[in-house]
Parts: sequence; C-alpha cells; structure tokens
Amino acid sequence: MSTFTAGPEIERLVQLLGKLPGLGPRSARRAVLHLVRKRDELLGPLADAMQIARDQVVICEQCGNIDTCQPCTVCRDPRRDDTTIVVVESVGDLWALERAGAMKARYHVLGGTLSPLDGIGPKELNLDRLVARVADTGAKEVVLAVNATIDGQTTAHYITDLLANLPVKVSRLAHGVPVGGELDYLDEGTLSAAMRQRTAM
Amino acid sequence: MSTFTAGPEIERLVQLLGKLPGLGPRSARRAVLHLVRKRDELLGPLADAMQIARDQVVICEQCGNIDTCQPCTVCRDPRRDDTTIVVVESVGDLWALERAGAMKARYHVLGGTLSPLDGIGPKELNLDRLVARVADTGAKEVVLAVNATIDGQTTAHYITDLLANLPVKVSRLAHGVPVGGELDYLDEGTLSAAMRQRTAM
Repeated sequence: MSTFTAGPEIERLVQLLGKLPGLGPRSARRAVLHLVRKRDELLGPLADAMQIARDQVVICEQCGNIDTCQPCTVCRDPRRDDTTIVVVESVGDLWALERAGAMKARYHVLGGTLSPLDGIGPKELNLDRLVARVADTGAKEVVLAVNATIDGQTTAHYITDLLANLPVKVSRLAHGVPVGGELDYLDEGTLSAAMRQRTAM
Repeated sequence: MSTFTAGPEIERLVQLLGKLPGLGPRSARRAVLHLVRKRDELLGPLADAMQIARDQVVICEQCGNIDTCQPCTVCRDPRRDDTTIVVVESVGDLWALERAGAMKARYHVLGGTLSPLDGIGPKELNLDRLVARVADTGAKEVVLAVNATIDGQTTAHYITDLLANLPVKVSRLAHGVPVGGELDYLDEGTLSAAMRQRTAM
C-alpha cells in the first residue's frame, strides 16, 4: 500500500525524478514541490525541454557526441583543427574539455573504457570507427584524453597499439599538480609524475 | 559566448534542471547525460509525467495540499477522522506526516510561517480558511504540527489565540528525544523538554 497522498500522477513524477543521479527520494520530493510552486517559470519549460530532447536528441554518427543535429555541432564547426582527434571516454568528458576551451579540434567518444570484469571489450567501444576516421581523414595527431584510472590507461595503451601502423602521432594528457592544488594533499604517483615532467620557467 | 557544444536544446535542458533544489550545474549535466542514455526508460516517461503535472496539478481549495483532483485525495478520503485537523506549514510536511502514518485525520496547509522580517504576516497565510473550517466542520481538535523553530512556534501561539473563542482543543507535537537519537548529541532545550514531558514505562 502506498502511503503517498498526492495522487498517482505526482507520486510517479517523484519516483521518476528520484532516478536521476544526485537525487534521492527526499530531494525528488523537494524538487517536485519546487516545480509545482514554479509551474509557469520552471515546470512548464522543463516539460517542454524534455519533450524536445526526447524527440530530437541524436548520437552523432561521426564522433559519438549527443546533439540535436546529425552530424553534431562540433563535427560541423568549420573553424576546428581537422588534423587532431581528441579521444574521450564519455560525452561528459567532451563537455568538460570544451568548457575548459582546451583545444579546438575534433572529438571521438569511446562510450566507456576497456573493462574485462564488466564484460566491456574492444567490440563494445567505438574503436573501429576511430581507426577508420584516422585512416580516412589523414589526422596527424590523436590525443588520448581518457581518465587517469587503471581502465582508462589500459584503454589508452590498447588504442596506441591499434593505431601503431597508421602515420599518426598518439599523445595523452599530462600528469601533474592540479592548478590550485597543494602538494601536501597529492598522492605520490602524481607528485613523481609532476617532477619527471617538470617544465622550464 | 556559450562554450556549450551540444546544441541549444540540450543546453536549455541543463539550465532548467540546474534550477531544481539539490542540483547544480555539474549534477544537471550528469542528469541530462543519464536521461539521454535512458531515453525510453526515463527521459520519455519523465517528459510525460511533467506535462501531466503541469496540466493537472491543482492546489486543494479546502486544505492547501497539491493533487490532481479538487478537493484532494486526503480531503475526499471517507476513512479519515473529521474531528481532527492537523495544521502544517507546507505540503512537504503533510507528506512527511503521511509517510509516518502519524494520524489519519484532515490537514490544513498554512503555506509558510509568520515571519515579520520576510514580510509574511497573518494575511499571507491560509488562516481565515482555517478558522472558517474549524467553525463550519465542528472539529474537536486542532494539532499544530509546525516546525520547532522560532517562526514555527510564533505561528503556533498566534493560531492558538485565533482559535481561543471556538470550542476546539488546540495541541502541538511533543518535544523529546528523536527515536534512535543519542542524548550526548542533543541540545539542552530538547533534553529538558524530554525530561519535563517524560512518560510512564
């Protein structure tokens, strides 16, 4: 028996919102009350935005980014460097690099990392398409912008081997001290990497 | 200039979701990526549920609860005790009491507490309707289930005065040790209230 007293429609909205990452049952209830209070400013626009996202969002066939056009905005952008492909694990990582304005190049979203324990092998990742892109477009550099985790680094090594026979430079992000970071709080691995890769002042 | 690279529709969805309590820009982005990955299981149903909520949710004219019917499910429920009205500050508090199954009675949502500094006086609260309800329905008890804050208690005293001339008993929630709570972590006010209101074993 449900102890919810606000009708099945509102209960369903609470349950669905509670499935979002970062929202539990309590914050989903608070969110629904907030939405109902702000029906015209927030609930209505959000309902419309979700409808549009459901109907229009597609995965870019070229790079794996999500967008409402095919190919995506990044792949269409004529001002980007065609000779560099930045390989990322997920669309979230692509967004993070774009927010940083790190490099105006092309991207390739793997859709995960190699993880044998989770049953994710090379076939599950967007790898064939990457090799074809590098061969077809004559890219000069592939930057492996994968996470500095075990799975991320395993994937980086696998891709390096995969591209070994193509005339392309393969690089990865630098390890080092995060900007604003304090040495005392950093792990030994990061500190020795930062020391090895020290740069001239 | 926006540095967002996923089209204006997705950017708008991120911005709107980021306005929910408990979600900031980062978690809104994560939520949108999650929604796009789970388009059929989550994004679609959530878009529909929001549309329904926008079109159907009403504020109950009787008690101030939100629901999709008028009067609300609680006010319609024939199995509830008509002689007791539980006064709460917000719909969230009503839901919390219902989840606890605390009392199968009627409710009255004030829509806030008296707070002169924020410009909230008696006129801003759902008070006239409360007095009319108590007079009309011949309720025997009004339980003031307001928060144990200064504003909540001020409001409780104000309502007690307001109902003084009506033949109704006015009560409030007990103060005491929360179930599972440790004495050492409780404030002195709670501990002395729990001692004063001690009950027989």
